[in-house]
Amino acid sequence: MKLASLKSLHRDGVLVVVNKPLTHARVVVDIAPTLQQALDNWEQLMPRLNRVYQELNAGHGQAIAFKPEDAAAPLPRAYQWLDGSAYLSHVKRVRNARGAELPGKLLDDPLMYQGGSDGFLGAHEPIEVRDESFGIDFEAEVGVITDDVESGISDSEAATHIKLLVLINDISLRHLIPDELSKGFGFVHGKPASAFSPVAVTPDELDSAWRDNKLHFPLKVYWNQELFGQANAGDDMQFSFARLISHAAKTRNLGAGTIIGSGTVSNQDLTRGYSCIVEKRVVEIVESGKPLTDFMHFDDTIRIEMQNHQGHSIFGAIDQTVKQCL
Amino acid sequence: MKLASLKSLHRDGVLVVVNKPLTHARVVVDIAPTLQQALDNWEQLMPRLNRVYQELNAGHGQAIAFKPEDAAAPLPRAYQWLDGSAYLSHVKRVRNARGAELPGKLLDDPLMYQGGSDGFLGAHEPIEVRDESFGIDFEAEVGVITDDVESGISDSEAATHIKLLVLINDISLRHLIPDELSKGFGFVHGKPASAFSPVAVTPDELDSAWRDNKLHFPLKVYWNQELFGQANAGDDMQFSFARLISHAAKTRNLGAGTIIGSGTVSNQDLTRGYSCIVEKRVVEIVESGKPLTDFMHFDDTIRIEMQNHQGHSIFGAIDQTVKQCL
Repeated sequence: MKLASLKSLHRDGVLVVVNKPLTHARVVVDIAPTLQQALDNWEQLMPRLNRVYQELNAGHGQAIAFKPEDAAAPLPRAYQWLDGSAYLSHVKRVRNARGAELPGKLLDDPLMYQGGSDGFLGAHEPIEVRDESFGIDFEAEVGVITDDVESGISDSEAATHIKLLVLINDISLRHLIPDELSKGFGFVHGKPASAFSPVAVTPDELDSAWRDNKLHFPLKVYWNQELFGQANAGDDMQFSFARLISHAAKTRNLGAGTIIGSGTVSNQDLTRGYSCIVEKRVVEIVESGKPLTDFMHFDDTIRIEMQNHQGHSIFGAIDQTVKQCL
Repeated sequence: MKLASLKSLHRDGVLVVVNKPLTHARVVVDIAPTLQQALDNWEQLMPRLNRVYQELNAGHGQAIAFKPEDAAAPLPRAYQWLDGSAYLSHVKRVRNARGAELPGKLLDDPLMYQGGSDGFLGAHEPIEVRDESFGIDFEAEVGVITDDVESGISDSEAATHIKLLVLINDISLRHLIPDELSKGFGFVHGKPASAFSPVAVTPDELDSAWRDNKLHFPLKVYWNQELFGQANAGDDMQFSFARLISHAAKTRNLGAGTIIGSGTVSNQDLTRGYSCIVEKRVVEIVESGKPLTDFMHFDDTIRIEMQNHQGHSIFGAIDQTVKQCL
């Protein structure tokens, strides 16, 4: 099943079920006005939403055209957004860039930060930044959305709480991060609003590529229309989504609608490119003594997409332009 | 004006206006079903809520008895919870306890972390912890709730966005924090759900004690019925709430219903006691070479309250018991 939230006068948008090829949708306000409300009552409402999805795919009943640019983030605002760092090649390259030490328990203890979730960007909304000198970077990620999770659960129990998957652009302001992280309290300035794919999908949309609680498809990243990376999100993921959830829930419950990110997708194999700029810069520094690639400039574009075995877009594309805000 | 959210089958509770002495309330579902919805449309709805408040205080119209134990947190779940560390004596004592360095720009650059906001505790709900060895501590704080804040605003503009104030118990698991902060990404395990006072109040309820965007009343903290601290929240606050808001909004907008905490209230003057245990332990270590005070045990109680010039409780009391969760 595929779900989206159309932009509306309401801050949380209007929930729609979207058909498999992402061409048509149906407003389901009679089932749940918003995605949050659907997640609050997922077991009860999911079968009804799924029936609408089957009808849409069969071409039955009324439907409106689905335009990804009309979509807000699937959860335009959420009660929790926790981002892991499950790809250690990303952690190693980025910490290397900052001259920061690697955490001692890197292989066993996931890195995770609590991010701002009060206002996410839709897939086609601009990345508004005041100053290019902040060091504007994208981070292409996969994320899961859970229902209610009890504290202290095991990895295998955690897996049952994965209800939806999304793509995320976890926009980062690189030059603001070192000062912030040196204080130990995580990110406030360095991580403005993240952007989300037009639709969120249930795991069964991913066929055999969803296994071991990882998503085994390449994540394609185009910077200014050029392919910049196509790392496979299933490779080199040290911590599965189930492990990231159980980590997050060690001492607290997670409310329905919690979003857990994978961290920037990153493979050991450099021929697959990068899902963020800073990793490329680190490799350049190692190879030639200095970074050759700038961070993003105003009017740059970033496109993030994932295709299934048939070459069809699963989530729709994140497709953003950097704009100067005044 | 005083507002609360009564526990109900709905995750966000039911908004009520509470009278000044906290004895009676009126459900205002016809104005706004939840506090979040009131904050989403604050300018439009506040005058209507305020008329109910005036009626309640005059003894006009229907009212139900208000029992603080029936109150959820004013926002039972919120889209954003950012906690500052505005009292530097707290920062200095706690970092000293951890053997951690003080941030270089301590006097100019507020410490702030993004906390979990997907499920807060009501004032009388138990603090459920799996293991006493986590090092259970309370942190008595003051917080503000904002409407929509635009990124890049000044301190004076930020001040206009303070709509409500609350008391907060920012429960901390001290022994889980050093490992977590050494990773630089802030708190996940060390900060379980925070608890809130039964009511949130508008700044005009604080009379002359609300000035310079600080709240100049003592915050009384009773641990197992004994007075443990009565630091004045207006003294030694290095960063006003306006400054904390402008800091939070440096690179991003803040959505309506954002909660910003002061950090643990702490005064230089040790005769006023403490608002958390760890500060007392640090002073003990300095004086006698080792901590003499344990962290909290199961069945311990913690009460946090603030009174006005007439000795009346402003927010109602946070009054919690520590319980073992299985």
